[in-house]
Formats: sequence, structure tokens, C-alpha cells
Amino acid sequence: MIAILKPHVSDDRLNEIVHHIEKKGLQAHVSKGTDTTVIGIIGKFESSLAEQLRSMKDVENVVRISKSYKLASRDFHPANTIINIKGVEIGGDELVIMGGPCAVETPEQIDLIASIVKKAGAQVLRGGAYKPRTGPYAFQGIGEEGLKWMKDAGEKYNLLTITEVMTPETVDLVCEYADILQIGTRNMQNFELLRKVGKTQTPVLLKRGFSATYDEWLNAAEYILAGGNPNVMLCERGIRTFESYTRNTLDLSAIPVLKHLTHLPVISDPSHGTGRRELVVPMTKASVGAGCDGLIIEMHNDPDNSMTGDGVQSLFPDQFADLLKDLEKLAPLLGKTLDTNKISKQLLTV
Amino acid sequence: MIAILKPHVSDDRLNEIVHHIEKKGLQAHVSKGTDTTVIGIIGKFESSLAEQLRSMKDVENVVRISKSYKLASRDFHPANTIINIKGVEIGGDELVIMGGPCAVETPEQIDLIASIVKKAGAQVLRGGAYKPRTGPYAFQGIGEEGLKWMKDAGEKYNLLTITEVMTPETVDLVCEYADILQIGTRNMQNFELLRKVGKTQTPVLLKRGFSATYDEWLNAAEYILAGGNPNVMLCERGIRTFESYTRNTLDLSAIPVLKHLTHLPVISDPSHGTGRRELVVPMTKASVGAGCDGLIIEMHNDPDNSMTGDGVQSLFPDQFADLLKDLEKLAPLLGKTLDTNKISKQLLTV
Amino acid sequence: MIAILKPHVSDDRLNEIVHHIEKKGLQAHVSKGTDTTVIGIIGKFESSLAEQLRSMKDVENVVRISKSYKLASRDFHPANTIINIKGVEIGGDELVIMGGPCAVETPEQIDLIASIVKKAGAQVLRGGAYKPRTGPYAFQGIGEEGLKWMKDAGEKYNLLTITEVMTPETVDLVCEYADILQIGTRNMQNFELLRKVGKTQTPVLLKRGFSATYDEWLNAAEYILAGGNPNVMLCERGIRTFESYTRNTLDLSAIPVLKHLTHLPVISDPSHGTGRRELVVPMTKASVGAGCDGLIIEMHNDPDNSMTGDGVQSLFPDQFADLLKDLEKLAPLLGKTLDTNKISKQLLTV
Amino acid sequence: MIAILKPHVSDDRLNEIVHHIEKKGLQAHVSKGTDTTVIGIIGKFESSLAEQLRSMKDVENVVRISKSYKLASRDFHPANTIINIKGVEIGGDELVIMGGPCAVETPEQIDLIASIVKKAGAQVLRGGAYKPRTGPYAFQGIGEEGLKWMKDAGEKYNLLTITEVMTPETVDLVCEYADILQIGTRNMQNFELLRKVGKTQTPVLLKRGFSATYDEWLNAAEYILAGGNPNVMLCERGIRTFESYTRNTLDLSAIPVLKHLTHLPVISDPSHGTGRRELVVPMTKASVGAGCDGLIIEMHNDPDNSMTGDGVQSLFPDQFADLLKDLEKLAPLLGKTLDTNKISKQLLTV
Repeated sequence: MIAILKPHVSDDRLNEIVHHIEKKGLQAHVSKGTDTTVIGIIGKFESSLAEQLRSMKDVENVVRISKSYKLASRDFHPANTIINIKGVEIGGDELVIMGGPCAVETPEQIDLIASIVKKAGAQVLRGGAYKPRTGPYAFQGIGEEGLKWMKDAGEKYNLLTITEVMTPETVDLVCEYADILQIGTRNMQNFELLRKVGKTQTPVLLKRGFSATYDEWLNAAEYILAGGNPNVMLCERGIRTFESYTRNTLDLSAIPVLKHLTHLPVISDPSHGTGRRELVVPMTKASVGAGCDGLIIEMHNDPDNSMTGDGVQSLFPDQFADLLKDLEKLAPLLGKTLDTNKISKQLLTV
Repeated sequence: MIAILKPHVSDDRLNEIVHHIEKKGLQAHVSKGTDTTVIGIIGKFESSLAEQLRSMKDVENVVRISKSYKLASRDFHPANTIINIKGVEIGGDELVIMGGPCAVETPEQIDLIASIVKKAGAQVLRGGAYKPRTGPYAFQGIGEEGLKWMKDAGEKYNLLTITEVMTPETVDLVCEYADILQIGTRNMQNFELLRKVGKTQTPVLLKRGFSATYDEWLNAAEYILAGGNPNVMLCERGIRTFESYTRNTLDLSAIPVLKHLTHLPVISDPSHGTGRRELVVPMTKASVGAGCDGLIIEMHNDPDNSMTGDGVQSLFPDQFADLLKDLEKLAPLLGKTLDTNKISKQLLTV
Repeated sequence: MIAILKPHVSDDRLNEIVHHIEKKGLQAHVSKGTDTTVIGIIGKFESSLAEQLRSMKDVENVVRISKSYKLASRDFHPANTIINIKGVEIGGDELVIMGGPCAVETPEQIDLIASIVKKAGAQVLRGGAYKPRTGPYAFQGIGEEGLKWMKDAGEKYNLLTITEVMTPETVDLVCEYADILQIGTRNMQNFELLRKVGKTQTPVLLKRGFSATYDEWLNAAEYILAGGNPNVMLCERGIRTFESYTRNTLDLSAIPVLKHLTHLPVISDPSHGTGRRELVVPMTKASVGAGCDGLIIEMHNDPDNSMTGDGVQSLFPDQFADLLKDLEKLAPLLGKTLDTNKISKQLLTV
Repeated sequence: MIAILKPHVSDDRLNEIVHHIEKKGLQAHVSKGTDTTVIGIIGKFESSLAEQLRSMKDVENVVRISKSYKLASRDFHPANTIINIKGVEIGGDELVIMGGPCAVETPEQIDLIASIVKKAGAQVLRGGAYKPRTGPYAFQGIGEEGLKWMKDAGEKYNLLTITEVMTPETVDLVCEYADILQIGTRNMQNFELLRKVGKTQTPVLLKRGFSATYDEWLNAAEYILAGGNPNVMLCERGIRTFESYTRNTLDLSAIPVLKHLTHLPVISDPSHGTGRRELVVPMTKASVGAGCDGLIIEMHNDPDNSMTGDGVQSLFPDQFADLLKDLEKLAPLLGKTLDTNKISKQLLTV
């Protein structure tokens, strides 16, 4: 860590600051330049020291060099984390596809869509039973019954299931039904929720906050890891920018950046990331080009009558199946495999 | 609401869409232009209809004209909401000042700062007992004991108190100690928390999400109002932009915009909004110029040894007192009053 | 175009506004709702009418339905524009690769790099002789001599050349030397420059302004097309967002969006779009996945001693050659072709 | 300047980098930490060295401590720059008000508005004869004739005049007619234009690029100062963010930040900064609260029939006059003076 002092700081004040650092058991290397003085700080320090120093009089800026997250960092864990769920490996060679509707609506709907997802060769069924909504009067999801319908469909068709969990109190309940917990973009910094899922061993897909930096995102993952749950995957789902033609700006650079900074699997969500059906296919292929470990894609058999408005970004079933056929060819050129024929017949292990 | 169809939509499809609208008991006025066709939709409809229409094939876009929040809107509640807490009126003529440290640290610290806050002529003592932190290893706040120390200081010096509540489970506890609940920027869309504070009658200061639009912010307030708690005030605290010199970009236009869109009181937070001590004084005056109902300002007696890093944006006690003297002169030119001498002697009513 | 009036507008004022519209020879269809009144406006109107209406008292908002650019729009020109330059077709089946250094430095440097570019199988040599720089004291480019060196290298190795033009006065000069003019991100709305290149027939690569919307970008292209130059290609090069780990946020959704909105070729610049060497390879592949017509990639034989700082994002020669080999396999799966062996031996036609 | 090396850099490579720095005549202070090594670089170096170092292999990051602009920096020029134009002082005690229409339309219009501006007690008449427009088909301004009409109006009513200059070729022409040159937001980094106005002595109002950082903005000012023209003032006019309710987000923190970083006068433009008439009055007062030296405000006598769409943000004449009366009372509390009565009778000196 480096502290940069304001120009013309007095020697007395410099000594005070150095003393403050040394009191913490750290070394302070002072470099005096013509205009500015810089202190290099060496040793093991708590995260809050940077903030304390930045608050001090005559300190212009503090630059952290080491990262504030440790368990999530590839520096201390060079090998990829591979999360094995009932025989499906996320973060390894396999390209993992999660498909399904925005919201679980009826048992028939989720059964029908699950059959389409399986037949197309995807490994995971997605669907929301609890829906975060901007306003209090919008449809808020089916609730626990929807979890049950999804579990049934997953078991019937040999699909893993993923669904969103929104509150600490419902974590245990959702764990009973789903194979993967999804934490949504608005909850990326719901620290109580992060702590709670950190106490389970259920795999977690942590979506990026729509205005979160990579660093904040990895720190949010660190909350879960520090709680004792190593099964975290990160999902890029678009950030908020000035461009309003797309619902969000899908930041695909996040994929290679995260593969560099962390060992955790990286998933892309081109549906929420664009908010427009016609962009989902090209941005799925772009995500694979960028090196993602998997995709989460909305698909609906009847978008005209979907219960949420997200039908606008849902693929039709035939588009979904065609896309997977294309990915099957693309994946091997990018170090991944996808065998839709095999997956469509695959049984999950217990 | 207006639905704009894609160019060259067929008459059959147009009729289908119109039929879909009329099934909901609404009127559909079709206008055919040379290139595009537009449907004006009239009647009382549920919030989700816009989303459903947007999902439909051949619908290019849907423009909502009426607002999705009702209780928060000035359209249906033209008079200002004035929140009276023990004799202090927020949203009325009085300019309300909330001052204090980022975090409660010790009983002595909060007692000392409360005495400074009162003497300077502010009405409210701020301080955090629970602190939302980006990483899991940073200081997370003193907890319940801190709430108690604050309450004691508030009672001793006749100050209202405001403190952050981070989880639904602690809402009742915090209500026992504090006069005003603060919901922080990361929790603006923690819908469970909003619903929970909506069930109390304790006044709530709802901070803007650091990337929330005005519309999303007012919808978040609507959650609280719809729950039955009318005592909501909104606090602009800076948004995230490309500019990194300041910690956030304090969007002061939010003040007159909100005074136009809603009847709720509007507070400004120049401390978090800038993240730099030297900007707090001018941006406080700017906030008053923009027409705010109150301010929440960090002040610390010893920033060098503050337990969080927010000392960097805390005023020194004498700066705080001088600022209030300046505001006292400024306020009357902007339709507000502040009598620091009177306030410093004022007893709270029960 | 639709004008949405403020609630409770009087009939007299409504009639005035309708009259104002009809005076322009347009039809006004009035729809009165319970709260709001909407006017559908039909006919051929000038671009400024929307703005005029928006300025009028009692007009809440104006929504344009038709686009403000015509020549750039795919609505009126459904087939892809293919720009043929000396036998190289941009916007057709071929994936076009432009490679080279940020800045032309010496005749030896550009000759060496041109030989590497050709051998790797790229079609175009890039390099800057005029460099836009944030501050006045930074290296501003070699100038005309650099143009000459590039032209020589291009001719020697049978490569097309592309270079930036920064001012209207130098357009004619640059046209003498280069095959393609590049307009940089800061000049996307330098309207005088756009008009000037619009008077030539030299192909133009128009980079996106780093905070320009798609609509503004296509309107900038419209300036060139309206001047009489149909040979415009668009280049996504990253936008400015809150994320600072990458130099810019490469918005790959721009590729399928533009392919939908316009018939012009779309190029991606993963070098400036990320600003980090280790991201260039994955983001090049992602760009191809998203459906781009070509790429512009920085490559330098000796980044340690590059004259600008952009070495940090330049590939090494072997990385560049390996990348092209990978693209050769990837392209056919995305409807494109790249035959590096053939290109490395290809002569340009005159 | 500090160079931070990647973890585990070898001693050989470290020595190479140090040698590279020392070759430039600079001192390199190496600090080795447990994980990382840092080099403090001391001495006078060229601006491009930071970029070169950042390009080098094994350099993780380079942190500049000194600023890249010198003439614009308050570090080397502590006293405020005061620009005296015909007796009006910008940057001193006087609060300077520039008012007028977006565009000059007719001689009668500009004469009428000038009379209103003068009578209200403003010092400067604004108006555009050349208009930068997003699309090629919109009204592009009256041109030279408009300059003449403005000059006549300015002389008749004893007002300074300010107007936009868009191209290097028209700088000399505009200098003949106007007292102050305005450089618009899209031209902030039109370096050729900056260089050209830098060769004149005419005062320049440099608007902030709508996505420019403070640092880029001050570097743009440096171009003008380095050319020999010391008469530069900076104008905050709103930045582009995710919020679309307002046309731009007026970043008022820019005012105290710039007063800290530079000695140049700082002006605020609440008209373009908000794009909504009802926000102009409160945001003008907020700007004065933040400490600006002056304001540029749009005012139009007949917004319904304005030739551009900017009528939507223009004050009516009586609003403008009332606002100046309010500012007259506000200014003295913020260290400024405004005597509208005196100004309305004041003759300009030659």
C-alpha cells in the first residue's frame, strides 16, 4: 500500500503519519520527491487501514496494491474451481447451459419448458418463483409452490434447477428445492443474504450488481466464500450506462477479466444483458468467444402470454434449440465441449 | 399508455393485439401512419400490462404516460408532506440539519459529538451502529450497544437520532432506539426491508441507490407508503458516474425534480455525495440553493482516529458550527428558516 | 411522431397546438384519455418539428417513431453495403483484419510491422501519423512523413492502409496517401470534418464517440452519407462507464444492434475497447461471435519502446499471427471467411 | 510518479526497468514488499513517460502524482485569474450573468432579447450563430449575419457578447464580432480548434465535454493556455449519466473542485445542464451556492416559436428578471456581488 502526501507537508506531520503506521506493526518506507512525498507501507494490515490513512490530514491519496479479497483471488488459488453438481461440472471443460422462463407460472408451463430445455441439450432449468420488482404493485412471483413445480420438472427430466433467493429467511427453504441459488443484481450487496448463503454448501450464482465494479463484485463473492461456501459462480448480466437502446450494456470484458482475477466459474446472461430477443443469439456466441464457462438464457413457449414482461427477451423454443446446435460446433474452438445429444439423454447422478 | 407497432404489421396481427387489449376491459384507439401504427390505450390497467405488451410480437415499444407510483406522486397529493417528530418538522419551513459521525465508536465519542451538534444548532444526531461494508473483513459496526449510546446521547442533549437499519429482522430493534430509520444506498431495492419498515410508523430516510433513476427511487418509496407508513423522506447522496475524482456525483437536480414529482421531504447528503471534506461546505450551500428540506452531514472530532475511513469526508467541529451560521443567513432567501440559537436551547416534545 | 400533453390541458390550448401542427401540412389525430391527451402526428415533417413541439407550453413529451437518419437506415436500404477497395470487400463474406501500431514511428518500424501483418494474413495496415492527445505536451504524431512511410509499406506488401484524419484541412492530403480514413472517437461529432470527408469518395471508418448513443453515431454517419460519400463503416471502440479496470467498456451489443439498424459494415476495436493486451484475444473472438465484419487490432514489435503509451494494449507479433489462425477456424461458423494463407500471397488490384 | 510492478518480477527485469528510467536522467527508488515491488520515480520527466512505462512488460500500473497540466494548475499560479473585458471582471468579486437565446434568429429577436437582458441587469448577451446539431438535416444556425446582428445589439445596449465558434477557420471571423468565444461540449477535445483560439487573445469559455473528466477538461484548457491565450474560463454544462429525466446531470461539484485545482474562472450553465425550464431557477441558485463566478442562462421571448428545440429550457423574460433580483440578494452571502440596477445603466469601456 502506498500513501501519497499532499505537497509541502511538514517534517513533523510526516513523522506523525509514519509513527501512526509503525504503531500498527508495519514498515514505512519514505520517498521524498521534489514536490511530493510518498510512503510505501509493507506488512500485513487490516483492510480498514487504507481508509484510516485516507482520512488523515495531509494524506492526498492511498493506493492499494494488494487486493482486498483473498479467497476469491486467483493469486492464492491458481487452479480453476470446478463445481460438480450431480455429475454436471461447472467451471471445467463442459459449456453449461441454463435455460427456462423468467418466472414459473403454472405446473404445466414449467413441465413443458423443462422438456424443451432437456431435449435441446441444456443441463440446467432456470425459473423464478420469487421475483424482485421495481414497484410494489407488479407480479411478485408464485412463491413456494413454484419451487415445488420446478423441482418436480427437474427430477422428471433430469435437469439441475436454479432459482432466485431474495431474503435470508427463505434461503433454507429454497435450498430444499433448488440445486443452485441465484442472487440477483439488486441483492449483490445484500450482505445479510450473502452471509446466509455462505453458511450453506449449495452452489450460488452471484449476479453482478448493475453498477458494481469488478472489485466490489469479487468482494461480494468473498462474503460467501468467507462464510464457508466455496461453490460460487459469477454471472455477468449487463451494467447500467448512458445507452438506453439495450436494457443494459452486457460487459463481456468481464469474462476474461474475471478468468484472470479469480478461479471461480464465470457465466453470462445475454437475456437480461440486452433485454431484446434479437440480440440474445449473437451475444450468446460472443460470450462463448470471450471464454465463459456457461450461459443462462431465457426461453418461453408463449411470450405473448408470459406473466412478466421479460417475454421480450425470451427466445422461442426453436431458436433455443438451434442456438445450442450452433454452440456445439463453436465450443471446441474455444476450449470447451457441448454434446447436446448426449446431454439430452443423460441421467443426473445423486 | 401507447403501444407503437413495428412497421408493416399485418391487419390480422393488429386485430389480435387490439383484441388482447380489449379483453382486459380497456379501450384501444388505433392511429395508422404512413410507416407506423400506434395504439392509444385508455382505462385502468395493471402495472404489468405495459410489460406484457412489450413482450408481444410486432410491438416495437410501449410508452407509459401515467406514473407507476401513486402514493408518492404529487399528482394525487399536492400538499407537501410534513413529518413532525417530537416537535421538529421535516418538509415544512424549517431547514433540518442532521450531523454526526459515520460510525458510533464509543459512548464518550458519541456524547461529545452530540454536544457539539446540539450547540451548533442542529436538530438531529446521525451515527451508524450497523455499517454496510464492501468487503467481509472491514469493521461492520458496534451493533446494538451503539444504538443504546446514541439514544442516551440524543436524550441527554435533546436531539432526534437517525441510524441505519440493514435487515428486516433488526427493524423492530432499531425502532426502539432511533427516531428515524435510514435505509442506505445499497438497500434502496431491498424490497423485504422496504416492506418491513412500511409496517412501522417510524419515519424513514430512504437514500437513493447509487445508480437508481428517479422513477426507481420513487417506486422504492412507494413500497414503504403502500405498506402503511406515510413518513418517508428521500435523500440524494450522489450517483455513480465516470468521474472518479469525487467519490460520487452529487446530483442536485434531484432536489427540484423530486419537489416537482412528489410531496415527500427531500434531504441532501453532501458528505457521501462528494467524499471529500473540502467540498462539503460549498455543496451544502448548493443543496440549500437547490431547495432541499434538510441536510445530513458527517462531522467527527478526531478524523485521524476514526474507525471507518469516512473521516476523509467529515467536517471538523468548528467547520460544522460555522457552516450552520452561514446556512442561518442563507435559508430565509430560499424560503426556509434556521434559528441555531433557538434550536441549541430547544427541548424536544414527547 | 406522438406529442403527449400535460394533464388537464385546456381545450383552447389543445386546439392551438393542433393548429400549429396542421399549419405545417400535417395531420393531427387527438386521443383523449382520462388523465392525458395524446396527439398522433402523421405526414412528412422536418427534423426540427419534434424539438419545437417539445418546447411548447403544455407539451409533456414528444416521442419520435421514425428515425432521424434515412441514408444510414436499413429500413430504406435493406441490402448490406459492401465496400470494395482494390479487391478487398468490407461488409461482405470476408472477415477483414486491420493490424498495426498505434503510431507510425520510423520507416523501418512500419516496414517491419507491415511485413508481419501481411505474413499473418491480414488485409489492412493501420498506423497513426496524426495522434489526438489529451494534453498539449504529449507526442502528437510524425505528420505527413508518416503518411508517406505507410503508403510505401502498404504498396510494398500489398496491404490496404488506414490512418486517422483529425482536421478538415488535412483530409485531401490524407486521401492522397491512405486507402481508408479513420475518424477518431473524439471527432465523431466534429461536424465540419464529417462534412469534408463526405465530399470525398474515400472509404471512412467512423469510430463511435466514447459516450455516443447508437442514434447519435448513426446521425454522424448520416452527415458523411448526406455529403455524397456512401463508403462508411462503423467501428465500436468502447464506451465510458463507471468501470475503470478496463480503459473503456467494449459494447459488443453494438454489433448486432447496428447490423439491425443499418446496412453499413461494422468493425470492432478490441485494443482501445479494453486497453489491456491480455483482453485483446478473447474480445476479438467475442467480436466475431457477435457478428462483426472486421477488426482493427494494435500490434507492435517492441512495445517497451513504443512512442505512445498504447503499447500496453498492443499484441506481440506472434500473438497476432496465432489469433488470425484461430479466427480462420472460427469465421466459417459465423457466416464469414478468412483464408490467411491466400491473403498473405494476395496482390491488390488497382 | 510511481510504477507498481507485477508480483514475482525477476531481479533481472527489475534492473532493466530501473535502467530504462535512469537513462532518462531520473532517479528510481525501489521498495520491495512481500508481494509487490514499487518504484518511486523522481525528477523532471516528459508526459509520455508514464504511458511508456505502463506499456512495459511486468509493469502492473503507473500512478501519476504530479498533474499533467501546468499553466492551468493553481499549484503554480495561486491567485485567481480575473478576465477584464471592457470593464466587466470575470473571476473576481462580480457575479457575471450571460443571458440570451439558444440561437440568433432575426435582428428584431436579438435586439428585443438584448434589451431584456440589459434591463434585467445581466452583463453579457449570449446567442448562437453557428449551431452544432446531431443530425445533418436540422437547422445549423444563421451564420455570419447572425454574428453581425449580435454585435449590433451588444453595442446598442452596452452588453458584452458571447457566441460559439465551431471550426478553426471561423475563429478569426468570430473574433471580429464577439467579445467571448464559446467552445461547445462536442468540441472540448477538438485540438485544432483549441490551438487556434490559443493563438488569439480573445477570452474563451470552454465548456466541459459531456463525458470529460476534470483532468481531461483542464488538459483541454492547457492547450489554449499553452498557445499563449491566458483568458480561459471553464463552464460546467452537465455530464451524461444513466439518468434520462434530465437532459444531462449538472455536476455542481465541478465548481468547488475546479476552484481548488485551477485559478481560472468557473461558469455554470443550468439550462443545458438540466434541459428543463422548471429546473433552471433552483439550479442557478445552487450554482451560486457552490461558488461559481458566473452563469450562462437561456432566455427567449417566445419559446413556442423558437427555431431550435431548446425553447424547452429557456426562461421567460420575467422569470429571468426575477431570478437576477434573487441572485442580487444571494450573492453577498457567497462572497460575490451583483448590482442589477447599476449594471442596467452601465456603459462598457473600450
